[in-house]
Amino acid sequence: MARKAAQPLVAGIDLGGTNIQAAVVNPDNEIIGRARKKTRAERGAKEVTVRIIDCIKECLASADVNAGDIAALCIGAPGPLRPEEGIVISAPNLGWRNVPLKSLLESAVGIRTLLDNDVNIGTYGEFRLGAGRGVRDLVGIFVGTGIGGGLVIDGKLHRGFNHTAGEIGHLVVRMGGPKCGCGNRGCLEAIAGRAAIARELASRAKKRKTLLTKLAKGPLEEARSRAIADAYNEKDDLVVEVLDEAVAALGAAIGGVVNLLSPEAVILGGGLTEALGKPFVKQVAQAAAKNAFPQCIKNVRFAMAELGDDAGVLGAAQLAREAL
Amino acid sequence: MARKAAQPLVAGIDLGGTNIQAAVVNPDNEIIGRARKKTRAERGAKEVTVRIIDCIKECLASADVNAGDIAALCIGAPGPLRPEEGIVISAPNLGWRNVPLKSLLESAVGIRTLLDNDVNIGTYGEFRLGAGRGVRDLVGIFVGTGIGGGLVIDGKLHRGFNHTAGEIGHLVVRMGGPKCGCGNRGCLEAIAGRAAIARELASRAKKRKTLLTKLAKGPLEEARSRAIADAYNEKDDLVVEVLDEAVAALGAAIGGVVNLLSPEAVILGGGLTEALGKPFVKQVAQAAAKNAFPQCIKNVRFAMAELGDDAGVLGAAQLAREAL
Repeated sequence: MARKAAQPLVAGIDLGGTNIQAAVVNPDNEIIGRARKKTRAERGAKEVTVRIIDCIKECLASADVNAGDIAALCIGAPGPLRPEEGIVISAPNLGWRNVPLKSLLESAVGIRTLLDNDVNIGTYGEFRLGAGRGVRDLVGIFVGTGIGGGLVIDGKLHRGFNHTAGEIGHLVVRMGGPKCGCGNRGCLEAIAGRAAIARELASRAKKRKTLLTKLAKGPLEEARSRAIADAYNEKDDLVVEVLDEAVAALGAAIGGVVNLLSPEAVILGGGLTEALGKPFVKQVAQAAAKNAFPQCIKNVRFAMAELGDDAGVLGAAQLAREAL
Repeated sequence: MARKAAQPLVAGIDLGGTNIQAAVVNPDNEIIGRARKKTRAERGAKEVTVRIIDCIKECLASADVNAGDIAALCIGAPGPLRPEEGIVISAPNLGWRNVPLKSLLESAVGIRTLLDNDVNIGTYGEFRLGAGRGVRDLVGIFVGTGIGGGLVIDGKLHRGFNHTAGEIGHLVVRMGGPKCGCGNRGCLEAIAGRAAIARELASRAKKRKTLLTKLAKGPLEEARSRAIADAYNEKDDLVVEVLDEAVAALGAAIGGVVNLLSPEAVILGGGLTEALGKPFVKQVAQAAAKNAFPQCIKNVRFAMAELGDDAGVLGAAQLAREAL
């Protein structure tokens, strides 16, 4: 393949339940312009689409470029979705059904648009520019309110037959265990997602004391990652107990995934991971090793995501560039 | 890619704990010669290697060809192994450690030799010539004494970083559950493998009656798949109960794998699957659907393996051909 002498600009958009982020990225993978807006999902798909368009325009202005200077953009949205047709089939946390996001953006902004899954773009960003640089097989796991995941297999983002691959949060690790938001029981997310952890803490705190009552500044059911991490670092008995259970569940799921996929790297990100930091990544790695064959987990690298909030826009921009 | 006018012959070898099988395969994927020998693993790696070499020679004679007529052969062996170097690192059920099988066969037989995992070659056979023809992403699950698996991703056998991918039997579905042969607890294999099922049946039969006592013709701990299937088909209460639990565990694991990988097809094979037949495949598919997102499992095909004992040699022969 001939390499182009001058690679053009691309843009990446990360559509989340809370925020929309956009970035213009140059051939050196530097962000040369960015914008951010609240999503305001409650106002409906039409209004959110207008906000995405405004965010893109602000981002172009911030980079001091025109739509004509951008060769392609990629937007990551909650799924399931049909990437080829550019349609978000259903996004429960946005209240969306069958939104033709690609064609809406292309006609409004005039830039060739790709659509992908929001966790995929974050995983891809870490793979190409972050903690997963240089590996061919990678599992990205984002532990936040829920647990999302993305897979890079043989150097490519793996989407699979229904374009839904990566749902590591919905591996069953404890049959008959706690009820999950997805309707099933015993999913990883139902034990180790931040919402599940907070719910469990609230339930056990009815009979026990915990520092979190003071730190959470509100109902324990809604305790944020920062407060949970602070109580953990203070060695609060209850929080240590519940987080240890979460780590054990993460270890069971990830150990199994290592046995199944034999990845070279496991990248951990998301709000809870960022709040707890590298000691958490190390604990998860140790727990995974207890659940994987030694020869499967040998030399597998566990690392914390490096790009934070920029993983999504950078990964999306990369995907846009590679589609040129 | 230009297609060759005349494709040469290739050979596939399946090295199992009990039997060695070999086949010469023509360009139409027909087996034109075959041989089979007992493995006799207890006699050690040197003797087993001689038996493999003899089996290959018998197979060539049965096809009425010479080693010079075979462009390449591939042998599937229990792993873990290093395919590029052609070394079996460790095969507990053969008692092997660091056996350079590729070079041993090449120097003795004079045919270019490839080494791969035994479950991989079976999965690949089903993918190319059996129940998985025409799909790009496939999960093969072989429920026998234990539970093995193989993955085809984006049209290629997926081996992963440590060449160990596919160990679906060692996904944890019930943390803290029954002890597994691998040392962990709650692995799929520890609940739904034939050995685990037989052990559970034997344990519960101490207090309950079961037809299996008569059908097994020996200790229940060693009940064979055929006897278990016969008792199941007679609606024996205990056997139905234990097999239903196995199906639930298979559903939890496979549903999770569908969420994770989004395959197009799930192919079920192995001794227990063959004994129980298509109704078992249907039950497993229904159980998986309870554990997967509807949009992830939509249109995913569950099918019974079609090639039986020939899956391994045919898959190995295919891999040999594709390496030419």
